Amino acid sequence: MENKLEAIVSLAKRRGFIFAGSEIYGGLAGSFDYGPLGVSLKNNIKKLWWKMFVDNQDRIFGLDAAIIMNPKVWEASGHVSGFSDPLVDCEKCHHRFRADQLDNQKTCPDCGGKLSSPSQFNMMFKTQVGAGEDAPVSFLRPETAQGIFVNFKNIIDCFHPKLPFGIAQIGKAFRNEIAPRDFVFRQREFEQMELEYFVRENDWEKYFEKWQLVMRDFAESIGIKDVYENNKEDIAHYSKKTIDFEYDFPFGRTELWGLAYRTDFDLRAHSVSSGVDLVYLDEETGDRFTPHVIEPSLGVDRTLLAILLSAYTEDDLGGEKRIYLKLPSGIAPIRAAVFPLLKNKPELVQKAREVYESLKTELGNIAWDDNGNIGKRYRRQDEIGTPSCITIDFDTLEDDTVTVRDRDTGEQRRAKIRDLKTII
Amino acid sequence: MENKLEAIVSLAKRRGFIFAGSEIYGGLAGSFDYGPLGVSLKNNIKKLWWKMFVDNQDRIFGLDAAIIMNPKVWEASGHVSGFSDPLVDCEKCHHRFRADQLDNQKTCPDCGGKLSSPSQFNMMFKTQVGAGEDAPVSFLRPETAQGIFVNFKNIIDCFHPKLPFGIAQIGKAFRNEIAPRDFVFRQREFEQMELEYFVRENDWEKYFEKWQLVMRDFAESIGIKDVYENNKEDIAHYSKKTIDFEYDFPFGRTELWGLAYRTDFDLRAHSVSSGVDLVYLDEETGDRFTPHVIEPSLGVDRTLLAILLSAYTEDDLGGEKRIYLKLPSGIAPIRAAVFPLLKNKPELVQKAREVYESLKTELGNIAWDDNGNIGKRYRRQDEIGTPSCITIDFDTLEDDTVTVRDRDTGEQRRAKIRDLKTII
Repeated sequence: MENKLEAIVSLAKRRGFIFAGSEIYGGLAGSFDYGPLGVSLKNNIKKLWWKMFVDNQDRIFGLDAAIIMNPKVWEASGHVSGFSDPLVDCEKCHHRFRADQLDNQKTCPDCGGKLSSPSQFNMMFKTQVGAGEDAPVSFLRPETAQGIFVNFKNIIDCFHPKLPFGIAQIGKAFRNEIAPRDFVFRQREFEQMELEYFVRENDWEKYFEKWQLVMRDFAESIGIKDVYENNKEDIAHYSKKTIDFEYDFPFGRTELWGLAYRTDFDLRAHSVSSGVDLVYLDEETGDRFTPHVIEPSLGVDRTLLAILLSAYTEDDLGGEKRIYLKLPSGIAPIRAAVFPLLKNKPELVQKAREVYESLKTELGNIAWDDNGNIGKRYRRQDEIGTPSCITIDFDTLEDDTVTVRDRDTGEQRRAKIRDLKTII
Repeated sequence: MENKLEAIVSLAKRRGFIFAGSEIYGGLAGSFDYGPLGVSLKNNIKKLWWKMFVDNQDRIFGLDAAIIMNPKVWEASGHVSGFSDPLVDCEKCHHRFRADQLDNQKTCPDCGGKLSSPSQFNMMFKTQVGAGEDAPVSFLRPETAQGIFVNFKNIIDCFHPKLPFGIAQIGKAFRNEIAPRDFVFRQREFEQMELEYFVRENDWEKYFEKWQLVMRDFAESIGIKDVYENNKEDIAHYSKKTIDFEYDFPFGRTELWGLAYRTDFDLRAHSVSSGVDLVYLDEETGDRFTPHVIEPSLGVDRTLLAILLSAYTEDDLGGEKRIYLKLPSGIAPIRAAVFPLLKNKPELVQKAREVYESLKTELGNIAWDDNGNIGKRYRRQDEIGTPSCITIDFDTLEDDTVTVRDRDTGEQRRAKIRDLKTII
């Protein structure tokens, strides 16, 4: 589809998934606010990730480190000296560009003016911590991973885990992108789901493959199709092997998630800089060594965008064109919607409220809709990916059955109220 | 207890609830990292809040707005001009203090030197957004509430809710405190759970009381006792009534949560500043007006601290002194722990692993412990508030029963493996 991204941006705004950040003030580049359905979808993604990468695994420890850390963390990690993009200015219109995104163009894409030679722009947001003009500068973390490495010793000291073990974290990260773009794909503020998995050096290939499989399973569970695994040749200095999980976004095939073998680079760097020994003691052999690290790294916002793109479907149903989101039922923002057939019949409304309240209390994320005719309500729920719609009609009052309508096929069937929880 | 806060800080570090932020680099004032048990406890608090304040209510819409917003938001809200604390410097040792915390002391509490006269220090963290020295300054949000007000129109346009309705948000907020202190009570980075509930002006008292009751229920559900409701006299300019929910912290009785009637102050301020009409249209009467707002505002970190303080118990059990956390089972970080009676009997270990894996897959948050004798394992689980410990012994291999030991009473009873899920 030509303008699939535009269709998604429009649907996301119209139906309350994602709004431009600070919209009433004209917005703020690279900033988005998630509305009710976006929050629900994000929460479902994060819950499923936590289940598959933490709860269903052995010896994975959760962490929630601070966003503003001691600046020495970012000196040790190499971010202060090296986390930068090449910046060029137009000498005429003063617009700024990332040199590596200009494809060797020598003049300004906006006005044709002369471009400056590239300078390195550090992408970490700076802020001063404490009172006074001379208060020390620190940074908003550009990744959650370093919060994990600096807590390695805390986890060892508290839990004495045997290798392999992992530390997992979900949280915000910030990058002062020169050119944020492509909707929520490249924002200045985004959310990461990262796991650092500590292994013996000899075992790294085995566990690299293990997490590669978990990532494939995760892609399947959230309904992202056609993920391409690209064994990167041009890899970062801290990595010996990196696989990008790429997705065919409308703006090109590009990185969705990463899986990296980071060796012992990070723990060693923090050991040297902090003077604290970040090692593992094998209690059986008495060996002390620095573990190596496998890192599956996933962005929540990119994942959500790929889910919306994969789920977006236009088809004909009963002779009418419709748009619907074919979301897996486990992550759909609304599990089911409940309708009274007619809104001016108090007995129908009351019965429908009972069904609604009971499902909502048990499951959460149940919608109520009594606006317009049933066909319109179906279309609205289709557009936000609600798997089932439940209609309470006059038969319901007689025999406690309702109509359950399936999002994908449009098929309707009668079901007992008491079976609804199992069905949806 | 004299040093209850110290006991909590020590337990929190020792057992993996809360660590000093960036600890291996000497820390960072006002910054803490949550370890595995802290993350689990925080998640349980947030889930329960969402259930009680969002899912179990009518017409409450979730939101997740950006942390860095357009700076005009903070001009309109009054934070740029007024969100400051009075700062004094010691002219001798150059230490800085909050004037209002010095109790009229005229000399430096650290060195006795002369103090400067107070200046106003704005507590918002500043950062530059975009490339270049001249990039515009913005702020890290000092509260989540304003993100809600600027999205009021988006919610109206997408969902056309009838009054009363609410918008709820959980997220980080940042305040550049002059003197962060009292463990996680006053941090520079913290997490809020806020709800803005929009009502007709005439209804404000009714809904103020409604949310007061929900807050009381929430306090009870998370096991915080002795919450004092203090009808504030000295209230903010935007509020006509504010109740502080106070708690007896070891450092004094002070604010845990707030409930404020904010009138129509915020929506009006943003209407004027943005030029966008933030009104509600009553479709039945055709009236257009600015709704009034009731705001229950809760801090995640303060709530967690009050929970730990309320749950912390020292008693004698079977003639031995012990420390345990009497956490409600719904929020305990670990639901149950599973032990093989002996770790060198493969048949016991295998059976115990089966029980462990099956409970973990279904419920998450199940611990495994085969370290030391059973008594030591009980003590470890007591200290982190695990409600039930399940021991697999030789009888288990015969009749599929296990020992379930209760945290609070220390009582043990036999139960069938198939009943465990219901029991815990």
